[in-house]
Amino acid sequence: MKNSQVVPEPSSSLVDNARSVRRAANDLAQVSDEQRRAALYLMADSLKANSERIVSANQQDLNTAQSAGLTPALLARLKLDEKKLLLGIEGIRQVAELPDPLGLRQLHRELDNELVLERITVPLGVLGVIFEARPDAVMQISALAIRSGNGAILKGGSEANLTNQAIMKALQEGLHNSEINENSLALLTTRNESLALMRLDGLVDLIIPRGSNELVRFIQDNTRIPVLGHADGICHLYVDAAADLNKALRVAIDSKTQYPAACNAIETLLLHKEIAATFLQLAIPAFKDKEVFLLGDKASQALGIQGAAVDDDWSKEYLDLTLSVRVVSTLQEALEHIRKFGSRHTEAIVTEDKKTAETFLRSVDSSGVYHNCSTRFADGFRYGFGAEVGISTQTLPPRGPVGLEGLVTYRYRLRGNGHVAAEFSSGERQFSHKDLSL
Amino acid sequence: MKNSQVVPEPSSSLVDNARSVRRAANDLAQVSDEQRRAALYLMADSLKANSERIVSANQQDLNTAQSAGLTPALLARLKLDEKKLLLGIEGIRQVAELPDPLGLRQLHRELDNELVLERITVPLGVLGVIFEARPDAVMQISALAIRSGNGAILKGGSEANLTNQAIMKALQEGLHNSEINENSLALLTTRNESLALMRLDGLVDLIIPRGSNELVRFIQDNTRIPVLGHADGICHLYVDAAADLNKALRVAIDSKTQYPAACNAIETLLLHKEIAATFLQLAIPAFKDKEVFLLGDKASQALGIQGAAVDDDWSKEYLDLTLSVRVVSTLQEALEHIRKFGSRHTEAIVTEDKKTAETFLRSVDSSGVYHNCSTRFADGFRYGFGAEVGISTQTLPPRGPVGLEGLVTYRYRLRGNGHVAAEFSSGERQFSHKDLSL
Repeated sequence: MKNSQVVPEPSSSLVDNARSVRRAANDLAQVSDEQRRAALYLMADSLKANSERIVSANQQDLNTAQSAGLTPALLARLKLDEKKLLLGIEGIRQVAELPDPLGLRQLHRELDNELVLERITVPLGVLGVIFEARPDAVMQISALAIRSGNGAILKGGSEANLTNQAIMKALQEGLHNSEINENSLALLTTRNESLALMRLDGLVDLIIPRGSNELVRFIQDNTRIPVLGHADGICHLYVDAAADLNKALRVAIDSKTQYPAACNAIETLLLHKEIAATFLQLAIPAFKDKEVFLLGDKASQALGIQGAAVDDDWSKEYLDLTLSVRVVSTLQEALEHIRKFGSRHTEAIVTEDKKTAETFLRSVDSSGVYHNCSTRFADGFRYGFGAEVGISTQTLPPRGPVGLEGLVTYRYRLRGNGHVAAEFSSGERQFSHKDLSL
Repeated sequence: MKNSQVVPEPSSSLVDNARSVRRAANDLAQVSDEQRRAALYLMADSLKANSERIVSANQQDLNTAQSAGLTPALLARLKLDEKKLLLGIEGIRQVAELPDPLGLRQLHRELDNELVLERITVPLGVLGVIFEARPDAVMQISALAIRSGNGAILKGGSEANLTNQAIMKALQEGLHNSEINENSLALLTTRNESLALMRLDGLVDLIIPRGSNELVRFIQDNTRIPVLGHADGICHLYVDAAADLNKALRVAIDSKTQYPAACNAIETLLLHKEIAATFLQLAIPAFKDKEVFLLGDKASQALGIQGAAVDDDWSKEYLDLTLSVRVVSTLQEALEHIRKFGSRHTEAIVTEDKKTAETFLRSVDSSGVYHNCSTRFADGFRYGFGAEVGISTQTLPPRGPVGLEGLVTYRYRLRGNGHVAAEFSSGERQFSHKDLSL
């Protein structure tokens, strides 16, 4: 499973590069909210001023990719025309407007007379971000990193190398005009460097992979650095015996078809046996209209579904217009199915029975559990976070859609007046542990 | 670095065992505060009722260990007499009294009319805890796990196997009389099982190693499951030019000698050149009194320190009465030293200059940064957390001393009335994102 052979030791130039980002990030951590905000506007302005150069670099990348025979889907992701670039620039300005995640006091406690503890949010340090060929990610991630006071080392798909370099040059020019050291951002361009990035523990504090399941797994298996991301998104919708069936259909269609390649789209529909027949009478033609291909268990095949789901289907993330359907006898059976096959991403129930809804909300241990609404709401923008680094399916926080808040940590500050632990151990002094106002 | 050969695949009996803990933990997550509290009291009572059996099992373990030639230090840690057992039982009752970390609403937001988002604290799920031969850890960790609604799979050092089994039996008997499934706790007894535990991703949510640096590193390198712990504790005390030297000495002696084997004891003393001579005149005899062996750089050797620090010393965690001393010319040089050699655990400054203190507090990116007090305060009990799982030197939260709060995560609950994402994408509806009272 783990194969250290393929992960090279970092070259000395990579280590130097990372050290310089770390030093810059150390300074960045002490820069004010206003200065970070101003830097983001300057980054946006610089991208605007360099837009012609960036679009033409992208044209070159596109030409090379076309000759290399990239699929139309990949070409579409690689493409950065002026319109997409302007959207990215606008995104940076929006991130500038978000409230500062730093310097928040989370705890304030007197431990003893003149011995006061605080817990304050601070940046993580340096982010390592590995993503596939989407050049707009360079802008978005750089903005989130600087806004949250973090340095970032980025590695994009090599198909976008010229575009990414042009964008990074513009971003660093923007930083150059600001109070923030331009070395806070760095771009890697070779595969060897991006592999060796995983070995930079001590210099990189968090790795954010944005790409396929395989990419995320590979990184998790080959680094000691914490990884923020999600491997699978196998989301379920359960239609209860007490569901309003029109509501259920509306939610099911949206959860599956609004953007089927997203991780928060459903892969499995669980139907209570009491409503399965009636619901499928509505749902089969409705899904057909939307070109959704249904795969059913025996019971739902008997109710009109033509495709047959095999055992493997329950743990498959289709990421397209395929949906597996299963009939269950009880809520408990639905919960058991989710426990067994779910990826703890997002699950929803449709029911008019409040008690059943609350049992579902309490029992399912996914990062998002929904009642009477689409799983597609599992998203940082929709939650009101303003911007999103990604969605995490790990259990530990940050979990679910992760905004700026997920890019900060905290630090304890203790201010005393010659206080020593020995006096408390001996019983000479006692801790007061009195909470002060935040 | 990574060696998958030594980590065996989990046996089917281990997987069954872990599944049964997971199922029990799922039920436990839904049990009330009062029921979890009551279960802890029953666990304590059962340990009390079985104390003779436990102490005699420990006697057997001790006899075996003695014959095997264990060091006196290890024998002392292994020993569980009635007094130590009663302390452990008292500890469980104290954990019962701690405020419930579950069910706290951290976010409450209207996304649209009748579409309301909540973020609620919930248990992590199942903890995997690997510790060396300290049988009191079984009691403490089991109490913390149940209080926070988590299942736990524990593996202690094999020297304590009989003791641990007797304790676990008593704890499960206590749970048996409570509302909580006794399978919420499980004890592994073979090394193979504890290795295979690292492969139980999907069944175990967090691994907590309590032991040597080597143990922590080995686990980090061999699991995809998040690991809570600290590898190194290389803490620094910087005595500034504007320090009150008596205060500095008091803090230095406590930071080094109050418990030198602890991770929050200092390993290096940094002295501003302006006070180095005067301070060492006081400090050299004072440290000698406490049997501390000083190793100095050239400058501090010239001021009377007899031992010579070599390059390696700055990154060594002595864990005993050895202290390296270095003279620096400026605060910046001290900060640079800490940045280079520190492990981001806890660092302190002694100074009467408030501005210098604030610069230090702002610049050092360790989990604890202190002014005019001992590094030995870096501890969950001293911070007022009531109990501590351990101290984490990772950058991401939970960081520093980790209490019950570090054993919980959160879940997003979204309640709607047939809401679908498509209507928001099309612009037909707009998010209100209105924060509601918590």
